[in-house]
Amino acid sequence: MFRKESLIKEKTEQAVKILQEFGIDCWITFTRESEICGDPTLVFLAPGHVTWHSAFIISATGRKRAIVGLYDKKAIEDIGAYEAVDGFVTGIKEPLLNYLKELQPKQIAINYSKTSEICDGLTHGMYLTLYEILKEAGMEDRLVSAEKIVSALRERKSPVELQAIRKAVAITEEIFEAVRYFIAPGKTEKEIAQFMLEEVRRRKLTTAWGESTCPAVFTGPDTAQAHYSPTDRQVKRGHILNMDFGVKVDDYCSDLQRTFYILEENENQAPPEVLRGFETIVQAIEEARKAMKPGVLGVEIDAIARLIVTKAGYEEFPHALGHQVGRFAHDGTALLGPRWEKYADKPFRPLEAGMVFTLEPRLTVPGRGVVTIEEMVVVTENGAEFLGRPQKELLLIR
Amino acid sequence: MFRKESLIKEKTEQAVKILQEFGIDCWITFTRESEICGDPTLVFLAPGHVTWHSAFIISATGRKRAIVGLYDKKAIEDIGAYEAVDGFVTGIKEPLLNYLKELQPKQIAINYSKTSEICDGLTHGMYLTLYEILKEAGMEDRLVSAEKIVSALRERKSPVELQAIRKAVAITEEIFEAVRYFIAPGKTEKEIAQFMLEEVRRRKLTTAWGESTCPAVFTGPDTAQAHYSPTDRQVKRGHILNMDFGVKVDDYCSDLQRTFYILEENENQAPPEVLRGFETIVQAIEEARKAMKPGVLGVEIDAIARLIVTKAGYEEFPHALGHQVGRFAHDGTALLGPRWEKYADKPFRPLEAGMVFTLEPRLTVPGRGVVTIEEMVVVTENGAEFLGRPQKELLLIR
Repeated sequence: MFRKESLIKEKTEQAVKILQEFGIDCWITFTRESEICGDPTLVFLAPGHVTWHSAFIISATGRKRAIVGLYDKKAIEDIGAYEAVDGFVTGIKEPLLNYLKELQPKQIAINYSKTSEICDGLTHGMYLTLYEILKEAGMEDRLVSAEKIVSALRERKSPVELQAIRKAVAITEEIFEAVRYFIAPGKTEKEIAQFMLEEVRRRKLTTAWGESTCPAVFTGPDTAQAHYSPTDRQVKRGHILNMDFGVKVDDYCSDLQRTFYILEENENQAPPEVLRGFETIVQAIEEARKAMKPGVLGVEIDAIARLIVTKAGYEEFPHALGHQVGRFAHDGTALLGPRWEKYADKPFRPLEAGMVFTLEPRLTVPGRGVVTIEEMVVVTENGAEFLGRPQKELLLIR
Repeated sequence: MFRKESLIKEKTEQAVKILQEFGIDCWITFTRESEICGDPTLVFLAPGHVTWHSAFIISATGRKRAIVGLYDKKAIEDIGAYEAVDGFVTGIKEPLLNYLKELQPKQIAINYSKTSEICDGLTHGMYLTLYEILKEAGMEDRLVSAEKIVSALRERKSPVELQAIRKAVAITEEIFEAVRYFIAPGKTEKEIAQFMLEEVRRRKLTTAWGESTCPAVFTGPDTAQAHYSPTDRQVKRGHILNMDFGVKVDDYCSDLQRTFYILEENENQAPPEVLRGFETIVQAIEEARKAMKPGVLGVEIDAIARLIVTKAGYEEFPHALGHQVGRFAHDGTALLGPRWEKYADKPFRPLEAGMVFTLEPRLTVPGRGVVTIEEMVVVTENGAEFLGRPQKELLLIR
């Protein structure tokens, strides 16, 4: 509880500064029954779920107010982040209008975005409800997207947030290290995943995303593609095995991939085509990382890694080079990705200090499997730093 | 996995019949990054989370199609519920428009609702995206709310769904039975909650809602109100203790409340004012239940229980008499509630067979605590039946 309280205080204070920076005088997070279809921003504003229509209103002048259903009032009051918490019984309209009439904001930023799912927590029904309420006060024209505000709030990681992420990365590396001695010819993808899940549970942690695909384990050629659950397919000599895995520590995630090669009886080293694939991925990650710094666009970073892979004669990877990581394994708006429709404007947002990204190019070695490494880096004023120990050597299984 | 597959097949088939019943020829669930801000309807349509823009399209003619990002394709294909699953790499616009031009729907129902959060899974940003895509095909005027469709799909419980709920209720009763022998003067609310959580974990289940308020435990007068975490307050003789608690079995929830009285050293029975409060609640529940049948409005049922409580001289409870239960502890649209702004049209939906409701009136006995029982009932053609063993006697603690 103490950690939650301080995070909420820290983040609501940060929000005031962000509002000042962007020249927007009021930001409202408007949500209900957050356990069913909650706004992902709520975790920075309240210690748990809310039940009825709830408004969290932050102003550039530093005022912070919450208007929630009566039964949700006390838990939010306890945080001490708000000047006042109104608890209504019959409906939110009256207390919300009263407060807004007092505040008289010029603009009202709300959580919707075509580009960024993380900033798109306002449902369409709730948008219509808010619009109608504001119309009664003649304020409906003041609505603007809060995308910039919510992005900055999530993306500019505080030291406390970075500490949790570093810990999650270290534990993930520890479990990857442990599973090296478990992987063996004949073991199935499912058995390997099970081993890793036990390691997570033993540490009383949870996986960074749903257990059915965390870890994702792929062995050999012609596997299902990413985002598919481990199968009964067995590990075989001469094949590549790769894994995608992360854990959550204090609500913050890691997301890493590692590549293993299962040696033939007579091999002491992977065959040249596997090594060449691996070296290409390592190089693509390193060159991309070296180019990262505040102000650079994600599309430029993606292009560097993509070019290294295709120039080496491999097919282009069918996804972005990297995404941000935070409370979700996929977090934030700015993306290291190509100019593809589904990524909208995300690749064209400049990098900022405090952003945490994955770097995860992939390529296929015919007859062997998929080589893919995923590292995590944090952008600083001086460039991007690895958040753990990057994989520089193929993990060989005897 | 087998259970998920059969549920999705069952529910997508049911959706076709519901579309026919309401005369709507096409229903689209449009969502992305469902782990971040997912549509609560997705669980009936896909076996896990989706990452990119995803459309699940069901037609009154019985056609079912999914259009998702490439990496999400195989897991959805495997269910066998869709005629085809398209997996795109760069964007959803082209495959979605191609399919809709082939389908030529007269109306396109989408998941938004002012009234019902469970039907309001489409975010405002995704609404704008879909609107713009449809505009290119001149179909943007065909959008309508899918509230009726989604409500019916969630509310009309199948035998498989009811079975899971019955099991969740039985286990909840079992744990309430066990905690009787743990509660004692001097024990804190937190200790009692901890005992119950251990019982849940021992059965390898999860709570029906967040553990911080499940169970909610309130002992004595002047406690925090509902939705507040257990505190260090100690159980005392002469006080009432009440708990709100539920578990999840096969993804379906229970939600029950029980009232205990802690006897004074010299008491063998609760004092008259506590008994009178308890009997009032039992009567309110029984009279409300007896009036429930298909076609009756929720507002009528709420009024019966509310009147019994106020006629007996107690203050009106500041919440609805009962809500539906399903995959969430608060589920469905139709509500047994009063005509209050925050409940919108929910209390004015007629009850239907297959709906599962709570009945949870409450009242305060000054100086003693809060009496509140919460039972669960299923509406059948012949009236409402309890889903477990209702509390008819105050649970006395020596």
